[in-house]
Amino acid sequence: MDTVRIGIIGLGNMGTSHASYLFQNKIEGAIIGAFLEERSGRVAELQRHFDGIPLFTDEDAFFRSGLFDAVLIATPHYSHPRLAQKAFAEGYHVLCEKPAGVFTSEVREMNEAAAESGLVFSLMYNQRTKPIYQTLRKLIHDGELGSIRRMNWIITNWYRSQSYYDSSNWRATWAGEGGGVLINQCPHQLDLWGWLLQMEPKRLRGFCSFGKYRDIEVEDEVTAYLEYETGATGVFITTTAEAPGTNRLEVTGTKGKVVIENEELTFWQLETEEPAFNQSYKGGFGSPNSQLIPIEVKEDATDHEGITQNFVNAIRSGEPLLAPGKEGIYGLTLSNAMQLSTWIDDWVSFPLDESLYEKELSKRIQQSQGKNHATETTLDVSGSH
Amino acid sequence: MDTVRIGIIGLGNMGTSHASYLFQNKIEGAIIGAFLEERSGRVAELQRHFDGIPLFTDEDAFFRSGLFDAVLIATPHYSHPRLAQKAFAEGYHVLCEKPAGVFTSEVREMNEAAAESGLVFSLMYNQRTKPIYQTLRKLIHDGELGSIRRMNWIITNWYRSQSYYDSSNWRATWAGEGGGVLINQCPHQLDLWGWLLQMEPKRLRGFCSFGKYRDIEVEDEVTAYLEYETGATGVFITTTAEAPGTNRLEVTGTKGKVVIENEELTFWQLETEEPAFNQSYKGGFGSPNSQLIPIEVKEDATDHEGITQNFVNAIRSGEPLLAPGKEGIYGLTLSNAMQLSTWIDDWVSFPLDESLYEKELSKRIQQSQGKNHATETTLDVSGSH
Repeated sequence: MDTVRIGIIGLGNMGTSHASYLFQNKIEGAIIGAFLEERSGRVAELQRHFDGIPLFTDEDAFFRSGLFDAVLIATPHYSHPRLAQKAFAEGYHVLCEKPAGVFTSEVREMNEAAAESGLVFSLMYNQRTKPIYQTLRKLIHDGELGSIRRMNWIITNWYRSQSYYDSSNWRATWAGEGGGVLINQCPHQLDLWGWLLQMEPKRLRGFCSFGKYRDIEVEDEVTAYLEYETGATGVFITTTAEAPGTNRLEVTGTKGKVVIENEELTFWQLETEEPAFNQSYKGGFGSPNSQLIPIEVKEDATDHEGITQNFVNAIRSGEPLLAPGKEGIYGLTLSNAMQLSTWIDDWVSFPLDESLYEKELSKRIQQSQGKNHATETTLDVSGSH
Repeated sequence: MDTVRIGIIGLGNMGTSHASYLFQNKIEGAIIGAFLEERSGRVAELQRHFDGIPLFTDEDAFFRSGLFDAVLIATPHYSHPRLAQKAFAEGYHVLCEKPAGVFTSEVREMNEAAAESGLVFSLMYNQRTKPIYQTLRKLIHDGELGSIRRMNWIITNWYRSQSYYDSSNWRATWAGEGGGVLINQCPHQLDLWGWLLQMEPKRLRGFCSFGKYRDIEVEDEVTAYLEYETGATGVFITTTAEAPGTNRLEVTGTKGKVVIENEELTFWQLETEEPAFNQSYKGGFGSPNSQLIPIEVKEDATDHEGITQNFVNAIRSGEPLLAPGKEGIYGLTLSNAMQLSTWIDDWVSFPLDESLYEKELSKRIQQSQGKNHATETTLDVSGSH
């Protein structure tokens, strides 16, 4: 395929952002084919900004248009699996905004549809393009940390004010979004969590607070404790209500430790692997010597544009995907499990009991009050991810 | 009192360390009056090192000797409350090594005996002498952080090899010590935790691993999640099996954040308090501005010698205690609660159910296998605290 024509579905905050760099021809081999935006109030503004792009407000008309080869889905979360499946059925490649969906059974169906279609399916996990996480992943996978023992992530720099939550009726409601900081801000970290460790937990205990610091139904603060079959443990801490936030990831293993904070990666490696030191050392209070190992980390992440370019390249020339769509289920499973553990006030074991999660979520959707104080606003996403 | 004569009870690792600086006249207004060391095998070595100090191997003879005005207790944990109460009954001031005891009901009795006696009672919480923690405490108490929302402590630099555990039969057994990293290494951090926050949790969920990385009965790895009546939360993470360890404390409040790591304190303060910003801000993705506030922290901690000097000054001139003995129960309650939560695999609410804790501990003491591979060794404590 010479040029990939992309149909963008949903021109809210993120969809408009993707449209902007595509419209500016920043993605090699790709152009915008058409827009689908069902909120007619957005039409005039979109036509002003994106002169000449065909705009549909009707989903069927959009899919019948023949104006694109692939879709980029940037609608509210619940609709992702349905729209992706529709696109696969019609023969379109799919790049979908995170999260993959709101609960895992529908994401599983989406993954099956993608596999059957043989089409390209990617997710907008733009943080996978960050060289610092790619470097850490390589250290882990090359065994430079030895066997992993502990991973702690304090990720509290997702500040969101009440005005953010009030910008759309669907935001931060059970019926509209199915969650808060876990489903909207943290899919990136939850994706990286699994992508780095390449393991599913044995069980976890989640502690979510719902509407604690914001007038919302869903979680705005979370702490979770995870245990793995290997004995490794993890702690994940997030909130949208703290400033200045922290983004600090620590991973320890039998051979050393990595800390990522303030966009810097620090790597200590032990001279002797810990279990071997422990076995041979007889001096009581001593500990294994370690060395700071300098690691060169490339500077720039290619970010959203990098994921879109990779998706386009995959279609054009079969380039391997950095964020294959089928992997979206892993982070979502962690997110679902952290909420479910809070709701049942107990451990959640893996594999996740999907039907229990859906039952508990349904209860909350039914009781959802929605919002009547929201005003539909498209926000400047320069501070978002 | 002109010169305080101190009787040191227990000349193991820590007792010998205290004896050394007292013997070198590093504490103004104090001398060593006598030693009580029941292990006769230690006698020759002690007499060689501490020439001229009367040494008793019999407790009653020691207490009858009239050779001291105060005692410094540095025996295994279980005996602390009994020995302190005996000392108070005989009219002696008491400086006791941490922890105050192994379970809280006996510590409560010890505290009552201390209060009735009117004698000076202090605990060896030498980390309270660290200017960096004193500075943080003042920031919190002066309201510079606003209302506290979260405290996270990763304190994994307590590396202890198997050879440390094998240095005494009582170490790291339920019968001999009543716990592991929580009761032996972390009493300092658990004391500082309460001393900094000046609040008792509403409830906590503890996740201890027992003998995971060492051949011991007790906990060598712990994660705990705490909730407070005010809405504040906390996470405490520790282990004796990691190198190089981490010691990172983060405290956030409505007005800012403090991080202590690598012996440095960093303080960010918000221009507008977070709830006020959230209420007035209408821009969606923005967050409150913050500034790094330079804080001068004095360099040197006076450490063990500082606590001993303060104890002696309190006896001689009524100087206020930095680590009053009665406060030892707070950190111990956290420690007990983290173990109990693991044992019952459930939340532990405060006030702690002391009898349930003792029942669960007793079960483990009864099943305790002790150790038959230990060799009695006095270790160089230069790496200890």
